[in-house]
Amino acid sequence: MNINEKMFGLGSKRSIIREIFEYSKKRANEIGKENVFDFSLGNPSVNPPEIISETIKTLIDTEDGTLLHGYTSAQGDFNVRSTVANSINKRFTLSLCADDIYMTCGAAASLSICLKAIMNDGDECVVFAPFFTEYRVFVENAGAKLVISTPMAKTFQIDIDDLEKKINSNTKAIILNSPNNPSGVVYSEETIVKVCSLLKKKSKEYGNPIYIICDEPYRELVYGDVNVPYLMNYYDDTFVCYSYSKSLSLPGERIGYIAVNPKMTDARSAYLAVCGAGRSLGYVCAPSLFQQIIGRCIDAKVDINIYKENRDLLLEGLTSFGYECVKPDGAFYLFVKALEDDATAFYEKAKKHELLVVPCDDFGVKGYVRIAYCVDKTRIINALPAFKRLAEEYEK
Amino acid sequence: MNINEKMFGLGSKRSIIREIFEYSKKRANEIGKENVFDFSLGNPSVNPPEIISETIKTLIDTEDGTLLHGYTSAQGDFNVRSTVANSINKRFTLSLCADDIYMTCGAAASLSICLKAIMNDGDECVVFAPFFTEYRVFVENAGAKLVISTPMAKTFQIDIDDLEKKINSNTKAIILNSPNNPSGVVYSEETIVKVCSLLKKKSKEYGNPIYIICDEPYRELVYGDVNVPYLMNYYDDTFVCYSYSKSLSLPGERIGYIAVNPKMTDARSAYLAVCGAGRSLGYVCAPSLFQQIIGRCIDAKVDINIYKENRDLLLEGLTSFGYECVKPDGAFYLFVKALEDDATAFYEKAKKHELLVVPCDDFGVKGYVRIAYCVDKTRIINALPAFKRLAEEYEK
Repeated sequence: MNINEKMFGLGSKRSIIREIFEYSKKRANEIGKENVFDFSLGNPSVNPPEIISETIKTLIDTEDGTLLHGYTSAQGDFNVRSTVANSINKRFTLSLCADDIYMTCGAAASLSICLKAIMNDGDECVVFAPFFTEYRVFVENAGAKLVISTPMAKTFQIDIDDLEKKINSNTKAIILNSPNNPSGVVYSEETIVKVCSLLKKKSKEYGNPIYIICDEPYRELVYGDVNVPYLMNYYDDTFVCYSYSKSLSLPGERIGYIAVNPKMTDARSAYLAVCGAGRSLGYVCAPSLFQQIIGRCIDAKVDINIYKENRDLLLEGLTSFGYECVKPDGAFYLFVKALEDDATAFYEKAKKHELLVVPCDDFGVKGYVRIAYCVDKTRIINALPAFKRLAEEYEK
Repeated sequence: MNINEKMFGLGSKRSIIREIFEYSKKRANEIGKENVFDFSLGNPSVNPPEIISETIKTLIDTEDGTLLHGYTSAQGDFNVRSTVANSINKRFTLSLCADDIYMTCGAAASLSICLKAIMNDGDECVVFAPFFTEYRVFVENAGAKLVISTPMAKTFQIDIDDLEKKINSNTKAIILNSPNNPSGVVYSEETIVKVCSLLKKKSKEYGNPIYIICDEPYRELVYGDVNVPYLMNYYDDTFVCYSYSKSLSLPGERIGYIAVNPKMTDARSAYLAVCGAGRSLGYVCAPSLFQQIIGRCIDAKVDINIYKENRDLLLEGLTSFGYECVKPDGAFYLFVKALEDDATAFYEKAKKHELLVVPCDDFGVKGYVRIAYCVDKTRIINALPAFKRLAEEYEK
């Protein structure tokens, strides 16, 4: 093959989610969309806050088009970055400034850039199962090796003993994703304190910082009185990769940022490496109109009660039918134990009841499926009897 | 250094354009913006077509927010891709379909993705001086080596003999940028025919296709009756990297596409490699709102007469003062021979007259400066006497 085989592989290997997406469309044509209970996609179902639309229209009507749609500096508009820094400072009692923030085209870009900025060939990056499948792609593109740490059974919190075994002198970073996709688990403060303490010990032992990369697109999607520790308050060598995809329901607009902890080892150099990595990957600047939207709507929020109601309804229903679910404090996913060892076989049986759920083998945990409840409530109500029938089928 | 040194280097080495940008701001504070004749930036000065603003407002008012701002498929919304393909077909008498188009976050992303899709370690990519400085960054990120072909003196057309010398069995692609940044030159049909004929011969000789990557952000910015050959009509193994940054004055919004010639060798595989490369670099989808804008405003145009007037005014003025300029048929740059061998020394002298132009050593041609005339006409009118004084200084 004359082209790059690895890229061909990445482009041609369909993810299971993509496969389900195509099946769902086909099936909807056959039996009607309302009869297909598709829970496969993590696409926000709650509208962006009204102020987003209003602000877009105001900007269009009042700003000069060549400025509004013009290039910003590569790291992002200065005022927008100041606003982001101040918002972080206010919420988490920190003292970041505009030059600690680098605006990005969403979380995938944030992660890709961050990894590229710090990784050298032969470095390793630890991720915690279950993990977002694209981590492997981003880590490998940065020339590093993905190492998977297995979680505690049932709670799906981080297993510190296992993490310690996975760390060696090549470990450059770990990726923390809390609330977690696909489990919905929020790592407790107790877990975080243990992880940080271990990393501090190991960084000292090897004479090099081990970075924490926080992947936080689901930070604002937390239900009830649950604390999501902000890692910069626990660990200096922290990058925060944020995205407004979920918090403002703008996943297609590709807008987010990287926050580089100013207390990090060689923080200025790390920030410059982030700038260099963005340049190297072809990111010129984050979309300019949506940078301005973030600058003006930083305190806007989607109505997460809609997700909470969905979660409660689904959780209550499924547990009453005998399903075993991981305690879901955040994100919009329910991580459910398949009713047989083989999650793919379970997925196939669920399909016969028109239930489309994602088998999670690729997420690094076997025997579970992910149910995305970012859907119309009606879909959940109508799907519950099908989930019941599916459970009954296994009881026979 | 614990981080990636190469990325640190890319982030910390300031480009000359960036340096001028900072100087310009500082100087404007000292003597007033109207007295600084900044011709350094390639940021469109002409407003986006009015229909863009209208369509944004209509979309906001009529479309469901979760769909309008939601994820599209990685390659882009199907209808938008169909519209782009049909537009290409109509203009250039071709038969592309939606699945030959991959929507991107602008030209830099198009190029980065394209290069990553086809390059393997050890491959070489030929570019033609003068060339956009970031080509080196994108080529090297794809693991390939940049090879520079020197142009014909004065015309700055491609020197076929030189190109032939630069091609060997490792040559995977050439990048054609016409109209050219920074020279403003449009490669003639005669040049293109010769290049294609040479590449066909060489591809046959080595038994592998040598791809042409057309970087075409300036395609629509052509003045007078000048034909810009569409490479797919001359050469099968062609990728077109397009951006709406200049054609619709939307550089900050990061919207463009890659068109993969369906007649290319293993075209389907090449397209899938493009998809894989986009995924690998962290591009999830092109910004969704602006995808819809392209779908609905495909025939919109900025008023390029404004640029043409600027060009004519500047060209006439400068040549009357004795400056030697390359014939500029397109883009919004004038490529001017410095009045001494050292372009940087000339740039410093120009600076004393408050004239900010870009010395082009980094673009691969020594002894020239780039004057970006995407500015208010007034700036040109006010700057002409300063250009005159600068020329007179050299005559003394």
